[in-house]
Formats: sequence, structure tokens, C-alpha cells
Amino acid sequence: MYEVELKVEAEHGPIRERLSELGAEPRGRVRQVDTYYDAPHRSFAETDEALRVREERDDDGRWIGVTYKGPLVEAESKTREEHETAVEDGDEMRAVLEGVGFAPAETVEKERERFRYREYTVTLDAVDGLGEFVEVETEAEAVEEAREGAIAVLRELDLDPDEQVRTSYLGLLLEDRDQRDASNVQ
Amino acid sequence: MYEVELKVEAEHGPIRERLSELGAEPRGRVRQVDTYYDAPHRSFAETDEALRVREERDDDGRWIGVTYKGPLVEAESKTREEHETAVEDGDEMRAVLEGVGFAPAETVEKERERFRYREYTVTLDAVDGLGEFVEVETEAEAVEEAREGAIAVLRELDLDPDEQVRTSYLGLLLEDRDQRDASNVQ
Repeated sequence: MYEVELKVEAEHGPIRERLSELGAEPRGRVRQVDTYYDAPHRSFAETDEALRVREERDDDGRWIGVTYKGPLVEAESKTREEHETAVEDGDEMRAVLEGVGFAPAETVEKERERFRYREYTVTLDAVDGLGEFVEVETEAEAVEEAREGAIAVLRELDLDPDEQVRTSYLGLLLEDRDQRDASNVQ
Repeated sequence: MYEVELKVEAEHGPIRERLSELGAEPRGRVRQVDTYYDAPHRSFAETDEALRVREERDDDGRWIGVTYKGPLVEAESKTREEHETAVEDGDEMRAVLEGVGFAPAETVEKERERFRYREYTVTLDAVDGLGEFVEVETEAEAVEEAREGAIAVLRELDLDPDEQVRTSYLGLLLEDRDQRDASNVQ
């Protein structure tokens, strides 16, 4: 099973209205704090992998999980193999990872609002330090079909599939940091 | 907090009788299947660390957890720093570890029967391929005091503290395997 996920930068106000017109089903709002790890034996930036511990809070409580994201298998739709499980204790999970040699590298914090529209999840993300984004996501065995469907959903939301952001929030934050570091040097 | 744990090899029949005489409280019986991992960047055998995924089954259901055991900080009592959390999905946890570069190395399977005696946990382990063992365990900030207490409990069980087995079940299984490999060569 592959995750297909398309993302564009867009103000949330008009998208929320359009989702309402289309009859998309609101699925709640959460705050997510993601810690990404550096590996001791290879550069995840170079191999395009990620190891993450996520803490999620909403009105109902808290969810903590650990996730591995493999390298892209289909670049156009950002398709990658992903493995994830919920864990009981985030501090202990982080201590296990740090014990075996991983180091916390960057933290990404965001408010995430989810909608269900047909077989797609539409996500409105307000990312601390980056801005507002819209993601259209689905899971499928047939990658190309899912990708075409996700593009059609972007168009229904009056979004331009050609304005796709293919860089992860982690990548965008690291780019911003590099630019800040560079301008501080000048 | 450090875990202090003393282990001897012993037939379980007489120990069960002695625990009953002492009024130790039975805490149930479980089957544990432990998968140990090799690291991609250092030898856990040399650094004396361990990364483990445990699946535990008893009459009430199932528990799955991931554990890091650090190097010994006090050799006499096998004291080490330990981090552990329950996880929801064992297959996904294993896939995360294998994704980031760890390889399953050895599996240890055992029937484990626990008793509570004062502030100690007494564990009767029947390990597949190794035999029967008794462990006396407690957690403490003051290592030496806990160790003396655990030795006293071993004596109350008519066990000889000088016959301590300081090698882990994993280590014992690997030693057995090495000996089998060596005798096959001759």
C-alpha cells in the first residue's frame, strides 16, 4: 500500500468554503508536534528517508506514534513506503531512539484540520514559521490512478496542481534556516 | 532509576514450593517472544547494549513493547539503564526499525511466571533451548542496597548467590549456537 499525497500552499479561508460547498465531512482539528531524527550511520537528507516521533493533541486526548518514511518510489506524487505504530510513552520512545544512536534534529509544529471527501483526506495545515498549506491524500495499490484522482480533487478546490510543493515541512524549515544562516553571515 | 536483577539456573519445582511457604504472591504466567536487533553502525555485542521488540501473551491478551538496554553501569548486579514503551502494532514497529537499518538477529522464547515477594519480583523462566532459571529483580536509586536485598532473597529461596548467571538469555543462546557451529566444523 502506498500513500499518495499532493500539497499546495494556500490560504485556508476560501478552501474551507469550497469544502463545505462540496459536502466534505469535517474530521476534527489537532495540534501536532513532530520530532525528526538524524541517523548515526547515514544521512536521511541524502537518502530521503525520515524517522519521526509525533505527539498529537485534540479535544479527545493525546496520540503518540513513531513513523519511518522510506525514499520516494514515485516522485511526481511524493509516494513513499511508510511504517507507523502508536506508542504509549513518547519520552521512553525518544529515549530508546537516542539510546541506539539517533539524535533529535528538528521539530515541526502545526495545527491540522482534516476533511473527508470521497476516498480522499483533505488536510489544512497551519505550520509554525511556514504558513498555510492544503494536502490531498489517499492510499492505494495503483499509484497512477490515485494520483490522477488527487489532482482532480485539487482542481475541485480551485487549486492549481502545477503549484505543488514537493518539499516536506521539515525540508522547508531546514531551507529557511539555511537561508537565515546565510543572510546572518553577510 | 536502575534495574537490579540477579539470575541463577535452577529447577522450578522446589522454588515454587519455597515461594509458597514464604507467602510470595503469584502474579501470573506469560509467554514472551523477544526479537533482538543488530545495529548498522556499531556492534551491540561489543558495546553490551540491546534493542528488543517483545510480544507477550497471557490469558488476558497481548502486550507488545520496544526496549533499549544500555551498557552495564554496575557489573556485579547486571545494572543497566533501560528505556521501554508499549507499542500498538509489533509488525509496524519491526518495519520501522528495519527501515532505519536495524536487522533482526536472534529470537528468545520463554514461559515466564512471576511472583511478588516484599519489594522484589521473582521470575521463573523456562527458556526454549536453554532450561529453567530464577531471577530476583527490583528497581532502585541506591544500587548497592537493592543488590544486597536481592542476594538475601536468593538465599531465602535456598539458591546460591555465587552461582549467578551474568550472561543474558540472548548471550547464552548465541554461545550455544557458536558451540554447535564449532562442533559441526570438526
